[in-house]
Amino acid sequence: MSQYQAPIRDMKFQMDEVLDFPSHYESFAQGREASPDIVEAIIESAAAFAQDVLAPLDGVGDDVGCTWKDGEVTTPPGFKDAYNEYIANGWTTLAMPEALGGQGLPASLAGFCMEICATANHAWTMYPGLSMGGIQTIAAHANDELKARFLPKLIAGKWSATMCLTEAHCGSDLGLLRTKAQPQDDGSYAISGSKIFISSGEHDLTDNIVHIVLARLPDAPEGIKGISLFIVPKFNVDDAGNVADRNGVRCGSIEHKMGIHGNATCVINFDDAKGYLISPPHKGMSCMFTFINESRMGVAQQALAQIEASHQSALAYARERVQFRGTVRENPEAAADPIIVHPDVRRMLLTQKAFGEGGRALSYYLSKQADIETYSDSEEAKANAEQLLSLMTPIAKGFLSEVCMEATSYGIQVFGGHGYIREWRQEQHFRDARITSIYEGTTGIQGLDLLGRKILASRGKALEPLVKEIMGFCAQNPSSPYVGALQKQLQGWSDITTSIGMKAMKNPDEVNAAAYDYLMYSGYTVLAWVWAQSAQVASQALENNPSEADTIFYKEKLVTARFYFERILPRTLALKASMESGVDSLPEFSAPL
Amino acid sequence: MSQYQAPIRDMKFQMDEVLDFPSHYESFAQGREASPDIVEAIIESAAAFAQDVLAPLDGVGDDVGCTWKDGEVTTPPGFKDAYNEYIANGWTTLAMPEALGGQGLPASLAGFCMEICATANHAWTMYPGLSMGGIQTIAAHANDELKARFLPKLIAGKWSATMCLTEAHCGSDLGLLRTKAQPQDDGSYAISGSKIFISSGEHDLTDNIVHIVLARLPDAPEGIKGISLFIVPKFNVDDAGNVADRNGVRCGSIEHKMGIHGNATCVINFDDAKGYLISPPHKGMSCMFTFINESRMGVAQQALAQIEASHQSALAYARERVQFRGTVRENPEAAADPIIVHPDVRRMLLTQKAFGEGGRALSYYLSKQADIETYSDSEEAKANAEQLLSLMTPIAKGFLSEVCMEATSYGIQVFGGHGYIREWRQEQHFRDARITSIYEGTTGIQGLDLLGRKILASRGKALEPLVKEIMGFCAQNPSSPYVGALQKQLQGWSDITTSIGMKAMKNPDEVNAAAYDYLMYSGYTVLAWVWAQSAQVASQALENNPSEADTIFYKEKLVTARFYFERILPRTLALKASMESGVDSLPEFSAPL
Repeated sequence: MSQYQAPIRDMKFQMDEVLDFPSHYESFAQGREASPDIVEAIIESAAAFAQDVLAPLDGVGDDVGCTWKDGEVTTPPGFKDAYNEYIANGWTTLAMPEALGGQGLPASLAGFCMEICATANHAWTMYPGLSMGGIQTIAAHANDELKARFLPKLIAGKWSATMCLTEAHCGSDLGLLRTKAQPQDDGSYAISGSKIFISSGEHDLTDNIVHIVLARLPDAPEGIKGISLFIVPKFNVDDAGNVADRNGVRCGSIEHKMGIHGNATCVINFDDAKGYLISPPHKGMSCMFTFINESRMGVAQQALAQIEASHQSALAYARERVQFRGTVRENPEAAADPIIVHPDVRRMLLTQKAFGEGGRALSYYLSKQADIETYSDSEEAKANAEQLLSLMTPIAKGFLSEVCMEATSYGIQVFGGHGYIREWRQEQHFRDARITSIYEGTTGIQGLDLLGRKILASRGKALEPLVKEIMGFCAQNPSSPYVGALQKQLQGWSDITTSIGMKAMKNPDEVNAAAYDYLMYSGYTVLAWVWAQSAQVASQALENNPSEADTIFYKEKLVTARFYFERILPRTLALKASMESGVDSLPEFSAPL
Repeated sequence: MSQYQAPIRDMKFQMDEVLDFPSHYESFAQGREASPDIVEAIIESAAAFAQDVLAPLDGVGDDVGCTWKDGEVTTPPGFKDAYNEYIANGWTTLAMPEALGGQGLPASLAGFCMEICATANHAWTMYPGLSMGGIQTIAAHANDELKARFLPKLIAGKWSATMCLTEAHCGSDLGLLRTKAQPQDDGSYAISGSKIFISSGEHDLTDNIVHIVLARLPDAPEGIKGISLFIVPKFNVDDAGNVADRNGVRCGSIEHKMGIHGNATCVINFDDAKGYLISPPHKGMSCMFTFINESRMGVAQQALAQIEASHQSALAYARERVQFRGTVRENPEAAADPIIVHPDVRRMLLTQKAFGEGGRALSYYLSKQADIETYSDSEEAKANAEQLLSLMTPIAKGFLSEVCMEATSYGIQVFGGHGYIREWRQEQHFRDARITSIYEGTTGIQGLDLLGRKILASRGKALEPLVKEIMGFCAQNPSSPYVGALQKQLQGWSDITTSIGMKAMKNPDEVNAAAYDYLMYSGYTVLAWVWAQSAQVASQALENNPSEADTIFYKEKLVTARFYFERILPRTLALKASMESGVDSLPEFSAPL
């Protein structure tokens, strides 16, 4: 059922009408100018590639999956050709510096293209997606010699990258990790250990794979403060930057997973593999966060991509499938109407639309902040953007990954029994989407990061830049019908934050007990804000005689915003009550099985 | 990870301590007496069969699935041996009348054994499960000659049954169905048409398959009022009740599904197949509801079974897997504690426990009502039971199937990345569970049945027997800490029912717009009631010096009840707000894609 069409109208709505990317792009230039016509051409070209090449491979990837033999992994049929086309057309170089062979366009633009690709084919897009994080990490932390050795081929897409964190006994709690790094005479390190759940860990798309690996030096302190960060390539690289002999890196096996079958999830064994230290000794975790934060925003994007893909299919099906007569007859002569006439079907479709388009609005807002953090000349603007990103990354990742399960489940439900059958592909979206709340830090971990590490650790100061943004919207848009609801949400957010903070001083477990609900409360509140913004822009646009198609588009924005405020946002009432019950409602289990 | 143990302690708690099944079973006897020792022996025997035989086949069924070749279906390895053992030990005859070769035990007892089997292996248990519905339908509606011809072998499990409703163009809306029944000179009918999504439609477990089929007579009125009900066997049956020549029934293909791979979901083509009318002409739907209602209660049971299975694995894993230190150290010497020390992990486990054990309490209450409806000598008691079942079947089916998706998703989440890997089997529970909110009527259909057909059509009278039960609990247990919350729920339920009823007089779409939220509101309320009951019984039991194991068991009941009231029930606040927004928040979509 590959009828995916990139949602260019909605992308442009957020970029041009809500977030004013044209001015944003004008305000800096790292290389090639991202003028509106260039932006449009690039997005349309990404859409064509995603629709024509990637989307048809999504089902193949799921059905055939990756195969492992003697340490080598074969990707599904068509994946390699698609990848070759992708790099031949320079997609990996889009936002990379011109000095390194890149096109010097803004990172956000590359991100929008990535979203289009992820919607067409989540599993395939993980291969180039992880490389972007690897490149950022090397660029931020490696010395010039290592950059020169590894970056050009990574940027050209000839090589790919991975992140190697998890070991069999430690996932969330990386302080427990055991992989060792032994200093060698030549200044390199011999890396030994076994990593699991390495996405894109081994495959046939590129000539080399560059692993970014967490490991311990011999004199490392115990726990999370004794971890260092290394580059460990699959093939060693000579001084000219070419592939040389095989390094001590082997793929031991690949996992058989619930979804994302087209991406190889690998056990990677390091056996005295040559590696290069790129963090200060024992300070690898904070460097790895370059990769982790990039990946978390990528997961938020995958979540909204899955919702978009599921919604497009479900909406088309709901317009075609006839079943029961509507109160208002769409086919007065026929025995039944398209199921979209039934309000309960619209409830499911609107839930998808509210989360999908709201997720896009949030993601684009954060992409803009990331551009500002990277490119702005103003230290103040950079610092503000950094604070916003730090606070909102766990919200975007945690919240969108949770609601994408609900939204893709509704995709199945709209199809009824057909939704449960593989050929219709709705169930693939649900299975693929399920990974998003697990990898790159589970929702529980995102909740702890948000509430514990960010908000309570700063005594609430971390919330301030975002609250200021939302209050700014309210002040500037007194005509918005949602100002009252937003202000009430902010007050509730502030109250519950204070209340948990007070309780946590007596019992630190109060943070863990509230973390999930708090994250979801925050997500619903932030989505309310972006929907109020979208509704305000749509409402103003409707006053300027838009075309018929645009009139429909803007009216749907108003409908969906209203749906969100009336039918979705009230969930925060339940979350608030749940948080208020505190850790006392989650006492220890003492029973044996 | 097949470590399934039948939850006999909790089953006995509901049967013996909460619902007083011993007196209930004493109050009637259709045949063999269901004395406490017989009940215990049967349940333990079912547990042994499920644990030792069925549970190990659950993963095999998922991995291998069913295979179709030339119209024949092979079930996964081991399924046939398990089935042979099952019928050899008389499990299919448990609650059947002695006159037909049955053991004459109560239907509820057979149901509890079915629950144990479904928890061990959902897909396998669907084969005998559907036969039970087929037997009830034939027993209720066929003439004596047809009963004599079909029932003995079905009861013995030598043959199995299916329900054939859905066609490619009609699922929920059976009024559209096209399968034809042409009267023949011998009094039989020639059935022609194609049915899809027929669970257990073709397989190698039994010598014959008896299809219960909806079709239209030549003079049938259009729509749902022109449907009749037929028996159509795969092999014709001679007058002695033995298999004769092949009938015109073929399995055209089987579906490739998201889950329940071990059960064959078939396209069944009827080509002038010999069938027997068992409903009055054109009045087949109401007869089919014998089968449908039985199946809906079966789906409610599958839902709680999936939650139980997922919870058992997740709980065991949470006790073993160490990750991070707890605020209270369980392993002071070790680098990390079992993850169950973290409140957020307990939140997920308690959510499973609240829905799983609460679902069991609800299911057993309804099983008792079904016994009363079938066996009671009192017309008044029968009528009351019938009303309760009519009202509560859509609640149990719809609500439990929805929350079992959340609960089994938490099973994955407790396992973290390992939850996404097939070998740990948590993801199978999630995939298998996903069917429950689709088949036997989607949640949307259950919501319409509850709110529209049952409650509003009766002007609220249908709610009365249940409200009386809940108010009775409150009156009899003034010491329960949950009386206030229950009374508030009832008031809210009544208010919202009235409010929707008023609005629906102006716009019938208000029913459809509220149906899903109303169903969930009802489910949360009913589960609150059964949890208040369980807590009250546990609290009284704790006053009587129970054993150490029982003390832990009862205390966990109190903990889970509190968790439910404080962290789950507040969701009804959100549902109420959503319903209040009405159909206006779900306007028509007018946009093209």
